[in-house]
Amino acid sequence: MLGETESVKKITKEAYRKALPELELRLSALQRRARERAIPILFIFEGWSAAGKGTMAGRLIHPLDPRGFTLYTINPPTEDERLHPPLWRFWPKTPSRGRIAVFVKSWYRGLFPGGMGELPAGDSTAGVLRVDEINSFEEELCREGAIIIKYWLQISKKEQKKRLLDLQKDDATKWRVEKEDWRQNRRYDRIIKNIDDMLEDTDTEFAPWTIIDAHDRRHATIKLLETAAEAIERRVDREAAAAEPVHPQMKTEPVTLAVSVSPGESPLDAADLTLSLGDEEYRSQVEKCEKKLREIELELYTKRIPVVIVYEGWDAAGKGGNIKRLTERMDPRGYDVVPVAAPTDEEKSHHYLWRFWRSMPKGGHIAIFDRSWYGRVLVERVEGLCTEEEWRRAYREINEMEEQFVRAGAVVIKFFLHISREEQLRRFKERESVEYKKWKITPEDYRNRSKWEEYRVAITEMLLRTSTRHAPWHIIESENKHYARVKTMSIAIQSIGKALRKT
Amino acid sequence: MLGETESVKKITKEAYRKALPELELRLSALQRRARERAIPILFIFEGWSAAGKGTMAGRLIHPLDPRGFTLYTINPPTEDERLHPPLWRFWPKTPSRGRIAVFVKSWYRGLFPGGMGELPAGDSTAGVLRVDEINSFEEELCREGAIIIKYWLQISKKEQKKRLLDLQKDDATKWRVEKEDWRQNRRYDRIIKNIDDMLEDTDTEFAPWTIIDAHDRRHATIKLLETAAEAIERRVDREAAAAEPVHPQMKTEPVTLAVSVSPGESPLDAADLTLSLGDEEYRSQVEKCEKKLREIELELYTKRIPVVIVYEGWDAAGKGGNIKRLTERMDPRGYDVVPVAAPTDEEKSHHYLWRFWRSMPKGGHIAIFDRSWYGRVLVERVEGLCTEEEWRRAYREINEMEEQFVRAGAVVIKFFLHISREEQLRRFKERESVEYKKWKITPEDYRNRSKWEEYRVAITEMLLRTSTRHAPWHIIESENKHYARVKTMSIAIQSIGKALRKT
Repeated sequence: MLGETESVKKITKEAYRKALPELELRLSALQRRARERAIPILFIFEGWSAAGKGTMAGRLIHPLDPRGFTLYTINPPTEDERLHPPLWRFWPKTPSRGRIAVFVKSWYRGLFPGGMGELPAGDSTAGVLRVDEINSFEEELCREGAIIIKYWLQISKKEQKKRLLDLQKDDATKWRVEKEDWRQNRRYDRIIKNIDDMLEDTDTEFAPWTIIDAHDRRHATIKLLETAAEAIERRVDREAAAAEPVHPQMKTEPVTLAVSVSPGESPLDAADLTLSLGDEEYRSQVEKCEKKLREIELELYTKRIPVVIVYEGWDAAGKGGNIKRLTERMDPRGYDVVPVAAPTDEEKSHHYLWRFWRSMPKGGHIAIFDRSWYGRVLVERVEGLCTEEEWRRAYREINEMEEQFVRAGAVVIKFFLHISREEQLRRFKERESVEYKKWKITPEDYRNRSKWEEYRVAITEMLLRTSTRHAPWHIIESENKHYARVKTMSIAIQSIGKALRKT
Repeated sequence: MLGETESVKKITKEAYRKALPELELRLSALQRRARERAIPILFIFEGWSAAGKGTMAGRLIHPLDPRGFTLYTINPPTEDERLHPPLWRFWPKTPSRGRIAVFVKSWYRGLFPGGMGELPAGDSTAGVLRVDEINSFEEELCREGAIIIKYWLQISKKEQKKRLLDLQKDDATKWRVEKEDWRQNRRYDRIIKNIDDMLEDTDTEFAPWTIIDAHDRRHATIKLLETAAEAIERRVDREAAAAEPVHPQMKTEPVTLAVSVSPGESPLDAADLTLSLGDEEYRSQVEKCEKKLREIELELYTKRIPVVIVYEGWDAAGKGGNIKRLTERMDPRGYDVVPVAAPTDEEKSHHYLWRFWRSMPKGGHIAIFDRSWYGRVLVERVEGLCTEEEWRRAYREINEMEEQFVRAGAVVIKFFLHISREEQLRRFKERESVEYKKWKITPEDYRNRSKWEEYRVAITEMLLRTSTRHAPWHIIESENKHYARVKTMSIAIQSIGKALRKT
C-alpha cells in the first residue's frame, strides 16, 4: 500500500487558506449530526516517528467541540496492562454512543512490541497482538455502529532523518527524539515491508486505512479533514435516508456453524439428573477439593496465570451456593466474584462486551462471573432485548473474545448448571415458604419459567456454538446440589491443573 | 489505644465451635438486610505484619454471599497512582449502595509511605496523606450512608517474631516474609507509638476502630464477627424503626461560614458587564495568550503538575466557546475536556463526588470540567434533587476535596461565566433563529431561566462559601464573548504560572 505513494504532494498556502474554513465548518456540523444519531467515532493516527501524528490529531480536533471527544496518547503498556490480554487496555477507551475517541498511536503497536514495524524476536509471541484479533475488534465495534477512521502518516527515510535532526537542534524539542527513533530511521527499509503487510492485512471494508503523504503539512491537513468528513458524511447521509439507524455496509457472512442444531435434541438431554452424592462422601470429597484448590490458587498466583470462570444456569439451579462452596477456602485476595445484572445506562451506551472487559482478571487472579456475556444469547435473545442479527453474531464475537483470553495465557472454564423443570418449581416453592429465602424469589422467576422451552432452545444453541476447544462448556447436573458442587470443583481443579502443567 | 490491651485473650475450641455457626448465620442475614436497605459497607483490616489480616478477612467473608462483596488488597501505589492525590486510588473502590468492600490494608498506609508506623524522613510530606484528610474522607462516606468498620489486629513484638520465623521455615510461605517485616519487628517499640497516635487520631464517632487481640485466632475471629454484626445491626435496626433510611448519628456541626450571606448582595453585582474587547485587540491578545499557554503546557508536563479547570455559568453564557478558545492551540495530548451531565445510574449509586474523582488529571495533565461537582449546590439544590442537609454539607466537602488536590501539587482554577438576564434571552432567541445553533436550545433552558432568582441565590452562596485561598472563584464578565475568552486565558496563564514559579 505504501508503494503507491509516488512524488511528494503539495498544496499552496493560498489554496489551503481557501479550503480550510469550509472544511472545518463541515466537520463541526458533522460532529453534531453524528452525536444526534448516537454514532461513536474512532480516529486512529499511526505513522513513522516524526511524521506528525500529534500535530495532525491537533488539526483534526481543531474544529470539533471539545466536549464531544477524548484524545488518547498510547504509550507502551504498564506492568498492570501487560498482565492482561493486549486489547484489555483499549476496550475502556472505546467511545460511548455519540462520542469521538482520537488515538495517537493505538492497538497497532501491539503487533510490534519491539517498536513499530519490528518483528518480535525468535518465535515468542507472548503478549503480541495478532492481525485477526485487531480485525475482529474493529469489526465488532463497527457492527455495533461505530465508524473507524485510520490514518497512516507516510514520510520518506530522508524526510524522517531531516525532521529528527531538526527536532534535536531545538532545545524545546530535543527531548522528544529518542534512541528508538534513530533506530527506526536506520532500519527504515526493512521496517517498511512489515508496515506494508500490516496495512494490507488490516485494510478492511469496515475500517479501511487512509495513507496520508505527510511531507507537506498543508496537503496532509486538507487530505485528513476531507477524508474524515467524507467518512462521516457517507454514514450520516445513509442513516438520514433510511428510516432508522443502519449499520455500515459489510459482508454479512452467515455465522458459520460448528454443529447444526435441530430443535429436538440438546446436550442437556444427555445430562443424568439422577446423579447425587451422600452427605459423607460429599464432605470428604469437598475437603479434598478445597485443599487442592488452595494449592492451585497459590501456584496460579506465582505463575501469573489468569482464570475466568463463568456460571450460567436455570433460575434456582444453585449458582450462588455453588460459587460460595467453590470459593469457601480460597484466599480471598486471589479471586473476585462478579455478579452480572441488567446493564446500567453507561454500560448500555457502549459495545455489549465493554463492561465484561472491565472485569477481566489480571495474571494470577481468578474472576468468577455469576451470569456473563452469554446473557446476549440467552435472556436478551429470548426477551427480545437485542435484534436477531445481534445475538446471531454474538456467538462468534464471544468465541473470539474467549480465544483472546486463552491466547493471553488465561484458563476459561464455563459451567452450565442444569436442573429439571420440576425441580425448579420445587425450589421456587421452598423459597417462598422459608423466611430467609423469600428474598430470592420474584414474579420474574415465574415469568422466565413460563418460557422454559424458548430458553431451552437458546441454551442448546449456545452450548453447541460456543463450546470451543479453548473454552468448552461443562454441563453440571445440579438436581443434587452436593453432586453439582463437587463436580464444578473437580473440573476447576482439572482445568487449571492442566494449564499449570503446561508452564 | 493499644496500651489498653493487657493479657492475651483466648477462647476454647469448644466455645468457638458453639458460637461460630450462629454468628455466621447472623452476619449472612445482616448482609441481606443491608443490601435491601442499599447500605454500602466498608471493612478495613489493618495491623502488624503477620498479624493475620488476610486470614481474618477470609473469616469475615466466609459467611457472606460472594456476589455481594469485593475484596481489595492494597499494595504500594503504582507510578500512575503516585501522580494523583493519595486518595484518588481509593475512591473508585468505595462500594456502591448495597455492596460491601473489604480492604486488606487501606488508605492508612498513605500516612506512612515508608512502611506502617514509620514517620516520613525529614519534613518532606509530598504524597503523604494526612489524618484530617482520612477523617474527612470517612466522614463523607458515612454521611452519604456508608458503614465503616475498622480493625487493628494487635500482636506483641515477641509473637510477631515467632510468626515470621514460622513463616520462613515453611517453603510454601517463606516468600511472604520480606525485609520490611523484619525491620518492623526490630523497630516495634518505636513504631507502636506512631500507630497508637494514628488510631487515636482517626478513632471517630462515625468510623471507630476496633482493636482485636490477634494472638489467638479463635478469639480474634469471634470478636471480629461479633463486632461486625453489632455495627451492622445497630444501623439496620435503627433504619427499620425509622420510617425511612437514616444516616448514622453524628455531630452535625453547622457549616462554618467564611462569609455571611445576605440575599440582597452578591459578588455577581460587582461584575462590570459592559467590559468588552474590539476585534483587533481581541485577536492580538488571543494570539499572545495562545503562545504562552502552549509554553506553559509543556512546562507543566515536564514538571508533572496537574491542573483542574472548572467552568460554571449561566445557560448560554458561552462555556463551550470559551473552552474551545482556551484549548485551541494547546497540545491535545495534554488536556481532557470532561462534560458533566446528569449522573448515570451507576454514578448515582455512589457518593456524589465518586464520578469526579475518576476524571482527576494526573501530574502533567489538564482536566477541564464543563460543569462540575458544583452541580450539587446549584442545579441539585434549586431543583430539589438532593436534600438541604446534603447541599449544605457539600460546601465543606468540596472545599476539602479541592484542598486535597492543591496539597497534592495541583492548580485548581474556577471560572463562573456571568451574563445578564437580558443577554441570556437574546442568545436564546438567536439560537432559535440560526439553523446550526438550534440544537443548543431546549425547553429546559427556559425552565431554568424562569428560576433565575433562585439560581442567583445559589450561585451567590456558592461563590462566597467555596472561594478559598487555594481555589478561588473567578467571575468572568461574559456579556462580551471576546472579553470573556481573553480573561479566562489570562487567568489560566497567571494561576498556572504562579505554581510553576514555585517549583
